[in-house]
Amino acid sequence: MTTRDKAFEKACKDHGLNPAEPLVVGGNYLPLAQDGSTLYLAGQIPKVGDKVIVTGKLGNPVTVPQGQIGARICVLRGLIALHQHLGSLDKVKSVLKLNVYIHCTPDFTLHSEVADGASDLLVSILGPAGAAPRLSVGCAQLPKNAAIELDFIVKTV
Amino acid sequence: MTTRDKAFEKACKDHGLNPAEPLVVGGNYLPLAQDGSTLYLAGQIPKVGDKVIVTGKLGNPVTVPQGQIGARICVLRGLIALHQHLGSLDKVKSVLKLNVYIHCTPDFTLHSEVADGASDLLVSILGPAGAAPRLSVGCAQLPKNAAIELDFIVKTV
Amino acid sequence: MTTRDKAFEKACKDHGLNPAEPLVVGGNYLPLAQDGSTLYLAGQIPKVGDKVIVTGKLGNPVTVPQGQIGARICVLRGLIALHQHLGSLDKVKSVLKLNVYIHCTPDFTLHSEVADGASDLLVSILGPAGAAPRLSVGCAQLPKNAAIELDFIVKTV
Repeated sequence: MTTRDKAFEKACKDHGLNPAEPLVVGGNYLPLAQDGSTLYLAGQIPKVGDKVIVTGKLGNPVTVPQGQIGARICVLRGLIALHQHLGSLDKVKSVLKLNVYIHCTPDFTLHSEVADGASDLLVSILGPAGAAPRLSVGCAQLPKNAAIELDFIVKTV
Repeated sequence: MTTRDKAFEKACKDHGLNPAEPLVVGGNYLPLAQDGSTLYLAGQIPKVGDKVIVTGKLGNPVTVPQGQIGARICVLRGLIALHQHLGSLDKVKSVLKLNVYIHCTPDFTLHSEVADGASDLLVSILGPAGAAPRLSVGCAQLPKNAAIELDFIVKTV
Repeated sequence: MTTRDKAFEKACKDHGLNPAEPLVVGGNYLPLAQDGSTLYLAGQIPKVGDKVIVTGKLGNPVTVPQGQIGARICVLRGLIALHQHLGSLDKVKSVLKLNVYIHCTPDFTLHSEVADGASDLLVSILGPAGAAPRLSVGCAQLPKNAAIELDFIVKTV
């Protein structure tokens, strides 16, 4: 197993996620779509099994460290889809864009700090290929009261 | 006329939309842009003629079924732009990404159910090519008090 | 210096921005990423030097003209990244997509008018190549209490 895939499997285990878990989608949509060597991933919320485990608004009651845990679970769910599609994360050439949507109170301003939880894990697993241009914004709400949702676009080798 | 174009024209008629309606844009922007075989569509709100017909916040007073009607109108407006650009929806190879922005109260959590209105119509018109990775988030407000806005990226044959 | 680069440098000067300013990023992310001739830019907030100069909610207390100033600063920060990467804005073939996130009160509805500040400046600097399909939505909050955030995707020649 490669260094990336090992780091990915360890991070999944640390967060209670199964990298071989079949990806369930609840409607007429897909976990990802391919345009040549560009892969678009669906928005991910911090679900472990059937349960969204980080819910509510950043600012109150969700703390930045809790939001970062949520961010990491979202990233891992995206990587699970990628890993199942590609066979190995070594086929990721770069992350082209990372969009982070944070469910927050009207006065929460630490979106970047929460999003760092996602960026730092991407870099910890993928190395420099995990660094990407990033957007982070605050949302009135998110599906299933999730505290965070994110998606990313990936270039494959 | 092809199966897709027939389904598209029927859905337009059902929702009071004219597929040949000239696309008006209110500023220095475009209905779509092309990058090789990838087409980026502008954000669509549920306008019929000059009027946004689904306005206000999901949760209160807008219901999920009303939001789904709005979602379908947004999809159709995007398909009108595509159809006028491509000549036929048969030239759509796949939908690469669907982003759904839902104007909602701070405690509304059924974003996915509203977004299903968009996904289901895309699949009903385009077949499996209409299924796409999807993002849905909750917004504090939307242009012209629209209840929903969405955009999508399409791959052409 | 080309017409575009002159207009860009004048607009930077008018808004207190230095086109040669090193782009600082605060975490494991990048100012832009390249996928062939497609460039993805990071989300930009209206920072001049170290200070976000348009903060708070559109609607109250931020006015539409103030939001438009913020929009222009965001666009210029994106163009600074592009200009440093490409050497000249003449290498921009088109803007493929512009996404505008507006921090607003729950009853503010003039998102398009604020976003026009971004679109109009893109067209004023890049000519017709600056017109793009656009999304504008309202956000509960934005990083560092910014009044606006935007990102765009560019096609190079």
